[in-house]
Amino acid sequence: MKLLVLPGDGVGPEVTAQALRVLHWFAEHRGLALEVTERGFGLVNWQRHGTLMPDETWDRIEAAEAILFGAIGSLDQQAVIPSEERRKGSLLRMRKALDLYANIRPIRLLDALLEASPLKPRVAKGADFVILRELTAGMYFGTPRGVETLPDGTRRGVNTHSYTEGEIARAIRFACRLARERRGHVTSVDKANVMEAGALWREVAGRVAREEFPDVTLEHMLADNCAIQIARDPRRFDVIVTDNLFGDLLSDAGGAILGSLGMLPSASVNDRGQALYEPVHGSAPDIAGKGVANPLGAILSAALLLRWTAKRPEDAAMLELAVDRALDGGTRTADIAAPGERVVSTSGMGDAVLHELSLL
Amino acid sequence: MKLLVLPGDGVGPEVTAQALRVLHWFAEHRGLALEVTERGFGLVNWQRHGTLMPDETWDRIEAAEAILFGAIGSLDQQAVIPSEERRKGSLLRMRKALDLYANIRPIRLLDALLEASPLKPRVAKGADFVILRELTAGMYFGTPRGVETLPDGTRRGVNTHSYTEGEIARAIRFACRLARERRGHVTSVDKANVMEAGALWREVAGRVAREEFPDVTLEHMLADNCAIQIARDPRRFDVIVTDNLFGDLLSDAGGAILGSLGMLPSASVNDRGQALYEPVHGSAPDIAGKGVANPLGAILSAALLLRWTAKRPEDAAMLELAVDRALDGGTRTADIAAPGERVVSTSGMGDAVLHELSLL
Ligand SMILES: CC(C)[C@H](C(=O)O)[C@@H](O)C(=O)O
Ligand SMILES: CC(C)[C@H](C(=O)O)[C@@H](O)C(=O)O
Repeated sequence: MKLLVLPGDGVGPEVTAQALRVLHWFAEHRGLALEVTERGFGLVNWQRHGTLMPDETWDRIEAAEAILFGAIGSLDQQAVIPSEERRKGSLLRMRKALDLYANIRPIRLLDALLEASPLKPRVAKGADFVILRELTAGMYFGTPRGVETLPDGTRRGVNTHSYTEGEIARAIRFACRLARERRGHVTSVDKANVMEAGALWREVAGRVAREEFPDVTLEHMLADNCAIQIARDPRRFDVIVTDNLFGDLLSDAGGAILGSLGMLPSASVNDRGQALYEPVHGSAPDIAGKGVANPLGAILSAALLLRWTAKRPEDAAMLELAVDRALDGGTRTADIAAPGERVVSTSGMGDAVLHELSLL
Repeated sequence: MKLLVLPGDGVGPEVTAQALRVLHWFAEHRGLALEVTERGFGLVNWQRHGTLMPDETWDRIEAAEAILFGAIGSLDQQAVIPSEERRKGSLLRMRKALDLYANIRPIRLLDALLEASPLKPRVAKGADFVILRELTAGMYFGTPRGVETLPDGTRRGVNTHSYTEGEIARAIRFACRLARERRGHVTSVDKANVMEAGALWREVAGRVAREEFPDVTLEHMLADNCAIQIARDPRRFDVIVTDNLFGDLLSDAGGAILGSLGMLPSASVNDRGQALYEPVHGSAPDIAGKGVANPLGAILSAALLLRWTAKRPEDAAMLELAVDRALDGGTRTADIAAPGERVVSTSGMGDAVLHELSLL
């Protein structure tokens, strides 16, 4: 397997380093054929070489089978980086160019981390669901978009939410296939009561599930109600499928029940066998370089890579088990530690996972 | 004060009846000048008279100073009710026609209800914030909208998110005025990193706050991060201001921390002195007619009415205190009862509030 690593900014390099250690363990002990290339990208690259995204890096991205992505720094310095350059270096460009339409975000609250959750154990214990967020259409890419000046001299901002039947159908199919390997239940989320595009989403979701996945149970839910249910009864969900913008909010609302984004992995895949793996947390500039970031988001993203790209489900399960064991054993980075608990560094957490792997 | 009451569907009539009892108490004991008119509306009216919204009711709505609204039934029976009729009877028509742009949703977790919250007390105790949702623009009303057939015969659903500078500015002003009467802190929520309309929102929010409200602290927050913070650290918020669609999701996410929507009031006001008061819960057909619905959402909406329309802040505070006392005394409807607690009916909760009022 050819793996392109883009450590990027902030805590990106620290956490991807731990994920790589783990992948190398599988190469050494379990026969994973791994060929790693690392490339510059992001604000760091802008500061050193004057570009967020070197052309050579981009060529490799387009050709990659799997990308392990760290983080891209906050581009708030709008004035400094020209907008053309910002577009070239953006996550959104990667998602769109590679057609990575299926963004998989598993959310699983381990018993060992019940203490770190903001939710009461009676509400959250055992919560285990996946959000399938459509990632290449909707509000993020619809046109017309921009700011126009009205006849009276004031301005108007416009963005367009747009979905074709085909874009909806393939997301629903992906979610239904995921559900088949889980508990067979899909919740499709929209605002069909207000948005025509939401009504079309609902219609297509219903048809695809009925005609192609009679063995999967589909329910429809309004997005506002879904935001409530995630906090009040997260165990009711198995697979949630929704559009790009609702998916952005609801996957973070889902992640919040873990108390920290540090644990959350993601995979973004297309139908041509390419995928981008990325911890959900961002570059976290406040803690970058201190060796305190939680690498489990990146390490669990590597588990998704073992499952989706390497097609090694046993290895993926092994790695997930090693993570559970490390946490059961009380290993905690600062973000998931309860008051008084002993805290390890980024590489300390990597050590613990490797140690548990060696015992399996 | 001229009050138009639209009990509507489901639990609407039951809960508005309790709110009216309370308002009559203020008429009798505190000199509130109250003139109540009640009118038919909603599915009930459709079934009896063949229209969701009689013209005469609509005329009264347009002329009303204050509207106490119960609920409108779920319009899922799309086939039965012609779409023209649905539009005539919709909440969205009222919001738009009356220009009720400022939707105020206070969220306050009482100590007495900590048990009912899905959040841990260490996270949620004392949470007390207001969401100011813009209610007349954005995704709910933008055009173009609809479903079009593409050249290849498949369909595409489109909705448009649109905000003018003026629409943004008045929402921000409203939020800043609210904050002045509270803790002086406003969180403005957008997706400025992805949406041009969000970048305009952020720019206008910053300018209005800086130039017109130097005494108010404004922070900007991305909508996905806001969804996290509401679950993880709700006490950090004082006033949240956001657009129509994000406001829909985030106010429900906020409401979820109370464990039940039954407690949540709302007011939707314009700049011409008109307002619509409405409990946030919907028609709840599953429990309608059983006398078990929580009337506190409607009763606390009446408190907002005392504050915003009647301009009687002392009476509003008195009513809110009576509600607190009733809850402190252990009175619970089913939705907010902990396992084993004794449960009262809808009118039983009304009795308890009236009793507490009589003791104040
Ligand atoms: C960084 C940002 C553009 C991105 C998004 O909005 O999709 C992030 O929030 C995410 O969820 O991956
Ligand atoms: C009923 C529906 C149209 C409405 C909305 O989406 O605004 C409701 O969810 C609300 O929050 O008032």
